[in-house]
Amino acid sequence: MNGNRFGRLFQVTTYGESHGDAMGVTVSGCPAGLELDADDVQKELDRRKPGQSMITTSRGEPDAVVLNSGTQDGYTTGTPIGMVIENKDARSGKYEPYVTAPRPSHGDFTYSAKFGTRNWGGGGRSSARETVNWVAAGAIAGKILDEHDVQVKAHVNQIGDVEAPPVTFEEMLEHTEENDVRCAHPETADRMMKKIEQYQKEGDSIGGSIYFETRGVPRGLGAPRFDSFSARLGQAMMAIPATTGFEFGLGREAREWTGKDRNEDWTFSEEGDPVPVGNKHGGIQGGITTGQPVFGEVTWHAPTSIPKEQKTVDWETGEEKDIQVVGRHDPVLPPRAVPVVEAMLNLTVVDFMLLGGHINPDRMDGQVGQYDTDYHPRSPDNE
Amino acid sequence: MNGNRFGRLFQVTTYGESHGDAMGVTVSGCPAGLELDADDVQKELDRRKPGQSMITTSRGEPDAVVLNSGTQDGYTTGTPIGMVIENKDARSGKYEPYVTAPRPSHGDFTYSAKFGTRNWGGGGRSSARETVNWVAAGAIAGKILDEHDVQVKAHVNQIGDVEAPPVTFEEMLEHTEENDVRCAHPETADRMMKKIEQYQKEGDSIGGSIYFETRGVPRGLGAPRFDSFSARLGQAMMAIPATTGFEFGLGREAREWTGKDRNEDWTFSEEGDPVPVGNKHGGIQGGITTGQPVFGEVTWHAPTSIPKEQKTVDWETGEEKDIQVVGRHDPVLPPRAVPVVEAMLNLTVVDFMLLGGHINPDRMDGQVGQYDTDYHPRSPDNE
Amino acid sequence: MNGNRFGRLFQVTTYGESHGDAMGVTVSGCPAGLELDADDVQKELDRRKPGQSMITTSRGEPDAVVLNSGTQDGYTTGTPIGMVIENKDARSGKYEPYVTAPRPSHGDFTYSAKFGTRNWGGGGRSSARETVNWVAAGAIAGKILDEHDVQVKAHVNQIGDVEAPPVTFEEMLEHTEENDVRCAHPETADRMMKKIEQYQKEGDSIGGSIYFETRGVPRGLGAPRFDSFSARLGQAMMAIPATTGFEFGLGREAREWTGKDRNEDWTFSEEGDPVPVGNKHGGIQGGITTGQPVFGEVTWHAPTSIPKEQKTVDWETGEEKDIQVVGRHDPVLPPRAVPVVEAMLNLTVVDFMLLGGHINPDRMDGQVGQYDTDYHPRSPDNE
Amino acid sequence: MNGNRFGRLFQVTTYGESHGDAMGVTVSGCPAGLELDADDVQKELDRRKPGQSMITTSRGEPDAVVLNSGTQDGYTTGTPIGMVIENKDARSGKYEPYVTAPRPSHGDFTYSAKFGTRNWGGGGRSSARETVNWVAAGAIAGKILDEHDVQVKAHVNQIGDVEAPPVTFEEMLEHTEENDVRCAHPETADRMMKKIEQYQKEGDSIGGSIYFETRGVPRGLGAPRFDSFSARLGQAMMAIPATTGFEFGLGREAREWTGKDRNEDWTFSEEGDPVPVGNKHGGIQGGITTGQPVFGEVTWHAPTSIPKEQKTVDWETGEEKDIQVVGRHDPVLPPRAVPVVEAMLNLTVVDFMLLGGHINPDRMDGQVGQYDTDYHPRSPDNE
Repeated sequence: MNGNRFGRLFQVTTYGESHGDAMGVTVSGCPAGLELDADDVQKELDRRKPGQSMITTSRGEPDAVVLNSGTQDGYTTGTPIGMVIENKDARSGKYEPYVTAPRPSHGDFTYSAKFGTRNWGGGGRSSARETVNWVAAGAIAGKILDEHDVQVKAHVNQIGDVEAPPVTFEEMLEHTEENDVRCAHPETADRMMKKIEQYQKEGDSIGGSIYFETRGVPRGLGAPRFDSFSARLGQAMMAIPATTGFEFGLGREAREWTGKDRNEDWTFSEEGDPVPVGNKHGGIQGGITTGQPVFGEVTWHAPTSIPKEQKTVDWETGEEKDIQVVGRHDPVLPPRAVPVVEAMLNLTVVDFMLLGGHINPDRMDGQVGQYDTDYHPRSPDNE
Repeated sequence: MNGNRFGRLFQVTTYGESHGDAMGVTVSGCPAGLELDADDVQKELDRRKPGQSMITTSRGEPDAVVLNSGTQDGYTTGTPIGMVIENKDARSGKYEPYVTAPRPSHGDFTYSAKFGTRNWGGGGRSSARETVNWVAAGAIAGKILDEHDVQVKAHVNQIGDVEAPPVTFEEMLEHTEENDVRCAHPETADRMMKKIEQYQKEGDSIGGSIYFETRGVPRGLGAPRFDSFSARLGQAMMAIPATTGFEFGLGREAREWTGKDRNEDWTFSEEGDPVPVGNKHGGIQGGITTGQPVFGEVTWHAPTSIPKEQKTVDWETGEEKDIQVVGRHDPVLPPRAVPVVEAMLNLTVVDFMLLGGHINPDRMDGQVGQYDTDYHPRSPDNE
Repeated sequence: MNGNRFGRLFQVTTYGESHGDAMGVTVSGCPAGLELDADDVQKELDRRKPGQSMITTSRGEPDAVVLNSGTQDGYTTGTPIGMVIENKDARSGKYEPYVTAPRPSHGDFTYSAKFGTRNWGGGGRSSARETVNWVAAGAIAGKILDEHDVQVKAHVNQIGDVEAPPVTFEEMLEHTEENDVRCAHPETADRMMKKIEQYQKEGDSIGGSIYFETRGVPRGLGAPRFDSFSARLGQAMMAIPATTGFEFGLGREAREWTGKDRNEDWTFSEEGDPVPVGNKHGGIQGGITTGQPVFGEVTWHAPTSIPKEQKTVDWETGEEKDIQVVGRHDPVLPPRAVPVVEAMLNLTVVDFMLLGGHINPDRMDGQVGQYDTDYHPRSPDNE
Repeated sequence: MNGNRFGRLFQVTTYGESHGDAMGVTVSGCPAGLELDADDVQKELDRRKPGQSMITTSRGEPDAVVLNSGTQDGYTTGTPIGMVIENKDARSGKYEPYVTAPRPSHGDFTYSAKFGTRNWGGGGRSSARETVNWVAAGAIAGKILDEHDVQVKAHVNQIGDVEAPPVTFEEMLEHTEENDVRCAHPETADRMMKKIEQYQKEGDSIGGSIYFETRGVPRGLGAPRFDSFSARLGQAMMAIPATTGFEFGLGREAREWTGKDRNEDWTFSEEGDPVPVGNKHGGIQGGITTGQPVFGEVTWHAPTSIPKEQKTVDWETGEEKDIQVVGRHDPVLPPRAVPVVEAMLNLTVVDFMLLGGHINPDRMDGQVGQYDTDYHPRSPDNE
């Protein structure tokens, strides 16, 4: 099966199963001269890591990343960056009952129906553990965006029926990481937390959503018709496990707006450029970015692995049986998905910036075709 | 700019501007031996054609397709199918005021900002006219699906605040094409029609949405992680002009469901296969199809070209000015987008069936590597 | 069948059969602001056209190209350029005997074995007629290269055992187009011509080769390891019908050279840049261009369609039979392949220049993200 | 820089520098149910390993492969296979003089000119060490081919001016691995060996070539026009470091053959299929395989790293200087390239078999869409 690659010029390739030996990701297409070491990546992985709080799985993974290639003396060299993250705390035994008796609404069945087999430990390749690779790759993309003054940020804006009021970008930057639920509105975060704990206690789980927003994304990104900015961002977000909806701008609500109310007049910016008077368009017009912030929402369904009693069938024995999923599972997905959404945003934006000539594909700065020695100080080991 | 290609194995490539000489689409990857002539494609184009009713643009395009290659004696030959649809009724003059003074919330500005120029007549490359190519390609994909007993159908389920109740697949087949608004619930269709006419009279426009559903899509389609069935379907739908949201299964609503309520137990089908007891999952689990119908919704914002008075700026003269868009425009998009949604579904499903080995890539039937003469009866001209 | 696309960022997609209604090619990824009209393309097509001389097929094709999209007022707009070239002089009747009785060493059999059918008229999709599309696309690429001071040129350096002595780039520019055989060494051209006429008279055909060379290709092009400049150029050249060998630099002969003799010392250029003292390396080191001219050779086998008596079998009747191919065929391929080689070189170089950031993907000049009006003067029709 | 991916459906992605921490390769698209463990891969790596004999570099690499994902209980699961091979014996110090003073005719300069930097130890990313990844991926492809009765084999047919007479496929199978030079003609192997030792003694190096051949490649493979079997095989072979020529069938020599002499009549096979009476066509007609063996030759230039005195310049200091490359280097490349050529052949054939429907993309056997339990015996650890 293919499907393990993302990006046209900033190319990410991944492998790994939840209980396999290691997760791995190769980033090809990162320009040379980007300052990068394992800590830059680790910092992001730590945000996504399991076992951070009471509302995440208790699996104890250090998620320590190793960079096998692509850098020298702390700078990228333009060649592919291979990263490996070992799986340390896999306990497959608990998954054995599901080998031929799929968990309700999980990928257990579809993987087996496709391949005639599957890595069944911890959900194997279908596990959200895969997103550790995405966050690692996204961390590198994020470093590139930093150099181009582009920022992305996300927060959890709804859990079950608890919805946060709109927050500013600055509030997201300030508050998202302050609480376990990663909601930038502290008071709502408390209510979300209570809700989650309630479902957790009942052996149940709950859905939710994430709001994302960008700053500094240049105008002109996107390659409509099939690769419009919104189409590719939609693919990126819908690839995140357990998502059921993607919206940008007014999203689903746009169906109820008239043209007159939604349209935004043009005016001149201080620099004399045409700018729309508002941003109900969500930063994208005609499939191409306008230079205004891109924002939207992604919806997750509730985690399917729950301790409540459910029914399944065993296709080997032909028997119906009761099932209680007692592994270590998250009762809600968005809190740990915030860094994943940010990673996919990073990857999408960087890819389009490369495609549109906003980033030099060979090197972060300097002229194409000019060698220099700035990026390869001699290694101290050899001096 | 790239972005004019769709599909990994069933490869569609398009060109054309709204007021250019012709639209064109090349389909590469269609197996040999499919019965196909221009009428098969024309039939679908006629459904999408402008000027069908009072609620579509009055532009008078015959949208007559010509097949330049890829078939012989009424069957495909496995080689690329080149199609051309001439633009006959382009009147660019009305668009001249917008050359350097972009219409509010339209792609006028972003195309110029990206390229420093644009085909400004009728919106040029950013026009929904491009979807004539998609419908042409989708018609071929649909013919392949017919041979594999796969069906797709869509209808308009909401216009403004007028929402249709849930309808069955059979109701969609029966009623969708009966009314101008393409809503399968006749009574709602009437109410939608009135709503649209009201906005049209006011010189305004309105948003809406389409519900889609499939029958017979085999289980096992999808290539997670990045190319899960939902991710690629999301890209396909979000590429349709003016869409702002894509949902499948419970969609946005899933955020409010608990795991227990959304999860579906497994039972045995009559054939002894595991099947879920319901389809709240929307036909996709773990990014791979379960064999249940795939369904979802797509949202459109209101058309941006409206006769109501708005404000814009002219970047050449530096002046602010009033603008009234008086071309020929649709007051609402979903009615004409129904065949477009079906086309993108066809293309997505066929592509995944090819990727998963459900369709023989070289020929519709027979064994790979066996020549025969069934598909090339001698041409009468040569006898 | 796929395989109808070339290029990663400068994307060419083709269709068409020798005796179909039309050939077609879509170029996606051409920057905006390139001056371009049909004549620019026609000029190159005329060089490749059949019926130019006694040593080409007598098929009388005007090969008139129509541009359906992608330009406005004589400049490209950054959107895909769709081109169509109608087939006017197809006479399929002569090919009927081969429908189920393949011509020796031709693609007749393999196409039928792959697809169970084929467009049999004139060789259908397997015909060298397809290269009309390549030359059309290459003409656009060539225009881009002109703006970047890159030149490519080819000539026929061997026909049968008649080999031209080495010629300079300037001699190729001056003499290649002077004679029907397109050899830049006039005296050898005469000898080649006699040789070809002799084989033609005998009802036979003969192989040959083309030497190609570039000027101004910037250093730094190529994406090793799998997409090294030589690997992608090799693919491009081996895709040309009837080629059996690709060499660059010392080519096949390199096997007999020692490292000491082949290696080239580094010295400083007048500008103070490291330059090799020679160019036995053929302009490519480590899979990346050095800035020196890229040069090499491509070999063609003799055309397979010859009037001499041969034997074949009819898979429908099960009978052996004699065959004499009496259509209109070239007795030798390189003379008409010179513009094809140049086209594939153009396409390969432009694609790599886009990938390496040497060409702005959105527009030929100006800053990314700045709209302007220079490329869209109002059409006289509308004034 | 991209260029680290090979294959359309059997997708190989690589990373790693000669003196980096590790080499890595991800194989995506291998069907489920293939018996595979690390030993299958190791066996092939051992054939390519440095330090095997007096005529290879003395670098002591165990080249021990670790499989991080994609298999369970000894069978593939259809998910990506991540492999890592650590670099153990890197001694970068010797390369320090070349950081800003490039070795003659090596990739040192072009990498620095492209990226403004490079991994300079051991040639970094430009090193032939990368081919360890290709051999690892090719070993998996080879296992698939075994199951489909396809065989490939190569041997060294020329070193300098010492050329082997034609050998049979059986002789290649029997003799190639018997001698250090990997020539299937033992007597010629001895002469080659002496030649190499002579150049080695002189501090020089020498070029050479490899002949390859297949058995059992099905007819119908190839996707002309741009992805003809020969075009993609050409790319694969020209991607191998230090190659300067690719030929198949009569290769370069075809230029001197007439059509009559080269063409091959059709006759009936015992099974009643049309077969050509010979194989001067090299197993490919019209860009598609005929079912006859595919064969050809690849040429390598002499290794550029030689101890003989040469001249270079230092772009940092602006000084000219003498250079003697005293690392551990092969005096000739083809002997160790034999497994690399076989790997690239494996990868190319498997990719085309997947594209043409000859291999089920989801699983090695059984019906698409049928789950079973045969491939996932419970792990002993969990019993």
